[in-house]
Amino acid sequence: MNHFFKVKSLEEVMALTTQFSPVASETISVSQAYSRVLAQDLVAPKDLPGFRRATMDGYAVVASSTFGASESSPAWLDVVGTIRMGDIPDVDLEPGKAAKISTGGMLPQGADSVVMVEHTELIDDTSVEIYKSVAPLQHVIDVSEDFAKDQTVLPRGVFMRPQEEGLVAGLGVTQIKTYKIPRVGIISTGDEIIPIDEDPAPGKIRDINSYTLSGFIREAHAVPVRYGIVKDDITALKTAVEKAVQQTDMVLISGGSSVGTRDYTVDVLSSLPDTRILVHGMSISPGKPTILARAGNKPIWGLPGQVVSAMVVLKIVVIPFLNTLKGLGQQDRTIRIPAKLTRNVSSAQGRRDFVRVLLEKKNNQLMAKPVLGKSGLIRTMIHADGLLEIGDHVEGLEKDAMVEIILL
Amino acid sequence: MNHFFKVKSLEEVMALTTQFSPVASETISVSQAYSRVLAQDLVAPKDLPGFRRATMDGYAVVASSTFGASESSPAWLDVVGTIRMGDIPDVDLEPGKAAKISTGGMLPQGADSVVMVEHTELIDDTSVEIYKSVAPLQHVIDVSEDFAKDQTVLPRGVFMRPQEEGLVAGLGVTQIKTYKIPRVGIISTGDEIIPIDEDPAPGKIRDINSYTLSGFIREAHAVPVRYGIVKDDITALKTAVEKAVQQTDMVLISGGSSVGTRDYTVDVLSSLPDTRILVHGMSISPGKPTILARAGNKPIWGLPGQVVSAMVVLKIVVIPFLNTLKGLGQQDRTIRIPAKLTRNVSSAQGRRDFVRVLLEKKNNQLMAKPVLGKSGLIRTMIHADGLLEIGDHVEGLEKDAMVEIILL
Repeated sequence: MNHFFKVKSLEEVMALTTQFSPVASETISVSQAYSRVLAQDLVAPKDLPGFRRATMDGYAVVASSTFGASESSPAWLDVVGTIRMGDIPDVDLEPGKAAKISTGGMLPQGADSVVMVEHTELIDDTSVEIYKSVAPLQHVIDVSEDFAKDQTVLPRGVFMRPQEEGLVAGLGVTQIKTYKIPRVGIISTGDEIIPIDEDPAPGKIRDINSYTLSGFIREAHAVPVRYGIVKDDITALKTAVEKAVQQTDMVLISGGSSVGTRDYTVDVLSSLPDTRILVHGMSISPGKPTILARAGNKPIWGLPGQVVSAMVVLKIVVIPFLNTLKGLGQQDRTIRIPAKLTRNVSSAQGRRDFVRVLLEKKNNQLMAKPVLGKSGLIRTMIHADGLLEIGDHVEGLEKDAMVEIILL
Repeated sequence: MNHFFKVKSLEEVMALTTQFSPVASETISVSQAYSRVLAQDLVAPKDLPGFRRATMDGYAVVASSTFGASESSPAWLDVVGTIRMGDIPDVDLEPGKAAKISTGGMLPQGADSVVMVEHTELIDDTSVEIYKSVAPLQHVIDVSEDFAKDQTVLPRGVFMRPQEEGLVAGLGVTQIKTYKIPRVGIISTGDEIIPIDEDPAPGKIRDINSYTLSGFIREAHAVPVRYGIVKDDITALKTAVEKAVQQTDMVLISGGSSVGTRDYTVDVLSSLPDTRILVHGMSISPGKPTILARAGNKPIWGLPGQVVSAMVVLKIVVIPFLNTLKGLGQQDRTIRIPAKLTRNVSSAQGRRDFVRVLLEKKNNQLMAKPVLGKSGLIRTMIHADGLLEIGDHVEGLEKDAMVEIILL
């Protein structure tokens, strides 16, 4: 019986992300690009924009015609026409001339800037007073000022936010190569676990983990695939894990990773072909009895059965590995928000503690209030807005300390 | 010609969210709950958990039998059996007795606590040494300690994170009432706008906004519905807006909201039945030429045609209104992260400025570096990680000032 794990530190486990490479790529339509990860360098096929455009409503001018203009001494310009949106201007502009233009309109030949309509007064059909001078290229976007032809505009591995989707569209690229959306298999184990639509007899408990883990996987822009509940039976668990490894890119097994007689997960993982156990125990709390194995290029996690521990391990440890599979690389993408601690918090040395906290704004200062209650209670996660990380070599944190909170 | 808007402040516009009520509700399966908003108070139908459970592997005991136990003076207990996971224990425990138990197991009648296996040594089949005392209810979760029957566990209006989804599952609630996922209609207008798969002639520009706006709507867990590009034609725009208002819960019209001759949006909105214009111009930059109308209970937005302005208005102004439609209420849900400004930034008084910034960690301090480049360039949004908000009554901010950044 292997009572005491040889535990790994959080840093040692995180360093293992480099052992895994991204999933395959596929070509998708730009309208599906949001939340995907680029699997190619994107090069501008043309200049953006392809012509000199107005960024304000007003008058296209030669800047030098406006030099010295002011409220008390306006410049007078001849209005030679109006630029229609989307058209190539049919006028050429010389000094002393102006053409009416709207935001987004193309500047006529000769014009180098736009005077805002607010700084002008139309005197009659053919003349306008200018009250403020403009510099060359003021209130215009020049040819290729956004991106020049052949420039790499987005590198491989970029997460596609709305603005990246828009940029790709603006360049006229209708199809892009992105990493596939990883599929994550979820298996619940334990003789005590029953489906949520059954009424639990004493000793039984509903399968909460399949639902919380699915939620976190969806939040991370991946697809959860549920394999249901497997009883504490080594053959049944092996069959389920083999199927999940075949059909998905990462597998989560919740329950069965505690020390004790029912530690089937390690046995099953040890018996799989081409599979190595990388982690058996981590020095974090909650989450110590975490297992990580590698089956080919696929991570298989044995997560604690306790719901809160499983959630913390997923958020802190598993999601960074998922990011690697998604093609995002090893960069730490966790958002941390500074806050002031409302009370003393004790911690054990030699392990990383994650304390659930509630965030409250008080006199314009964000306060982190530890959520009381036993660590196994799901309500501590319901009441929490984030997790406070306490370092391995810290015995505790004092009231009013400035801390960083990982949002939940 | 209405050259100068009667602009509204950001606060005045935000106060208008109260004019809109949430979309209708529907009943969904708990497995679809992530990212939805609860449209009912959720009451616990039973105690959670329904029995006293172990939170550690070890021995179920009567706590008093362990009082005074230590490494040098262990307590000796009789082992009367092993609790099988998921079963009702068939032993009753008296003082001086212990039963082997795993995490999640049901405590036998009489037992009130669990000694961790690490603090025990099995001497023979029937006796165990205990090296550390436990208090009553230590390492157990008692009946109803998470949630008690008939308690309201989640109030209406809650955003369903993974943990809320798990809680609902744990209570055995398989169906919940949530607000529907809002559908947001997106219309691009302008004679200069062409579909992204066409090659723009000089003066024309591809329809970037339909893609960026769709991305932000998806990011906000709603469904974008694209109505394509409408030329600057009042009848065509009216037809498109009427159709979108009928089919969706909120409508975004990008372009056509600048001052000037082509201001069709206001004319169209004014001509719609049961529609009132609430905002025509906002004192924010970028984003001044923003229009908000109300058609029945549906918001219709006229967004600036310029891509960066449209994005900022969407992020800062439109998404809070969408949150109201989703049933989340009027609470400010924007995440702001403190950072240190790397250089002076000037700003105009009397308006709210949103400056694009890059975030960089330097000596453990997050630095906000303003992104240079004209405001109309999409690359300023590509290079930016967030927006720095500068107040109405501030002329600028100095280098090294602590500021709060809205993440992009």
